[in-house]
Amino acid sequence: MKIIIVGATGTLGKHVVKALEKDHEVIKAGSKSGDLQLDISSPESIERFYEQAGSFDALISTTGNGHFGPLSTMKDADFRKGIDSKLMGQVNLVLTGQHYVNPKGSFTLTSGILSEDPIYLGANLSAINGALEAFVRAAAIELENGVRINAISPGVVEDSPGYFPFFPGHIPVTMNRVTQAYIKSVLGTQTGQVYKVF
Amino acid sequence: MKIIIVGATGTLGKHVVKALEKDHEVIKAGSKSGDLQLDISSPESIERFYEQAGSFDALISTTGNGHFGPLSTMKDADFRKGIDSKLMGQVNLVLTGQHYVNPKGSFTLTSGILSEDPIYLGANLSAINGALEAFVRAAAIELENGVRINAISPGVVEDSPGYFPFFPGHIPVTMNRVTQAYIKSVLGTQTGQVYKVF
Repeated sequence: MKIIIVGATGTLGKHVVKALEKDHEVIKAGSKSGDLQLDISSPESIERFYEQAGSFDALISTTGNGHFGPLSTMKDADFRKGIDSKLMGQVNLVLTGQHYVNPKGSFTLTSGILSEDPIYLGANLSAINGALEAFVRAAAIELENGVRINAISPGVVEDSPGYFPFFPGHIPVTMNRVTQAYIKSVLGTQTGQVYKVF
Repeated sequence: MKIIIVGATGTLGKHVVKALEKDHEVIKAGSKSGDLQLDISSPESIERFYEQAGSFDALISTTGNGHFGPLSTMKDADFRKGIDSKLMGQVNLVLTGQHYVNPKGSFTLTSGILSEDPIYLGANLSAINGALEAFVRAAAIELENGVRINAISPGVVEDSPGYFPFFPGHIPVTMNRVTQAYIKSVLGTQTGQVYKVF
């Protein structure tokens, strides 16, 4: 299987790469490193990226940023950081990628626990994650040729201790559990699902 | 209570106005009609709108559009129609309005059934509604001075027969049920809730 991983060198991505590269052809993509580079905030960059990558069987996205800050001072421009990166970046990977993916291929996006379990400073990421999860449910009923789509929603992960103070009372999830959720999405046959790892 | 209704002349808004105007001071707002005009897709227009409206006790938004069309031909620009109108329009009503709302006041936004029950052509609105519902949960834990926020998620409503063909098997909900959900949000004391009317 030819599997593209966008965000391949990130905290999550590198574990997913490691788990898949023994048995599959893995194309590592990132903003600055990997086999192919792309700027997910640019639809044109995503188009060029797919032209280079060619047809594929699975795309995994473990990428995208949002704004982390207090609601009391949040502005339109802050909120749009998450819109342009984590939301539209991943949505555009699907909107454009649907024209390159092989029949019975799949897309696996990354949302996160904040869609349903909010924390202080996280309103932008909550909204972005909620949008991604609803998008996955809706896209699943329109994608053609048996193409599937799911989202992985991790809680705070054990490899990111820097985030722990922002997630009081959250029990960090193991990287193995998160990695296996991506494997389940790519090698399984479900679609329109949000795999909650928390 | 001084209650601002944005989208006051729309299908939902006019019923909400009717239910509240006997007992409250209702400020009707819309893009072209009402007591005050605003363009919700413009943060500057929203700022000017609040400067004119002054402090208030409750803001109800029954406004905002999205893109309705097939995923197979959907582009970034299509998807951003819903982002700029129904999502950021309502988010900016809160981000700016939090500085004008009275203590113990409230915001009531409008999402919709597609966040969890998708239909063909509805991927953009699914994502927007999912974002709004997660935003409400997150904003509720940061708003200060006892200010509350909820979302109403209506199914297809009886007054919109033009939409019925796009919602096969959906049983239209009565306008009275939908209207009462707005009343519950404004006159009740809950926060961070999504009232599903379907």
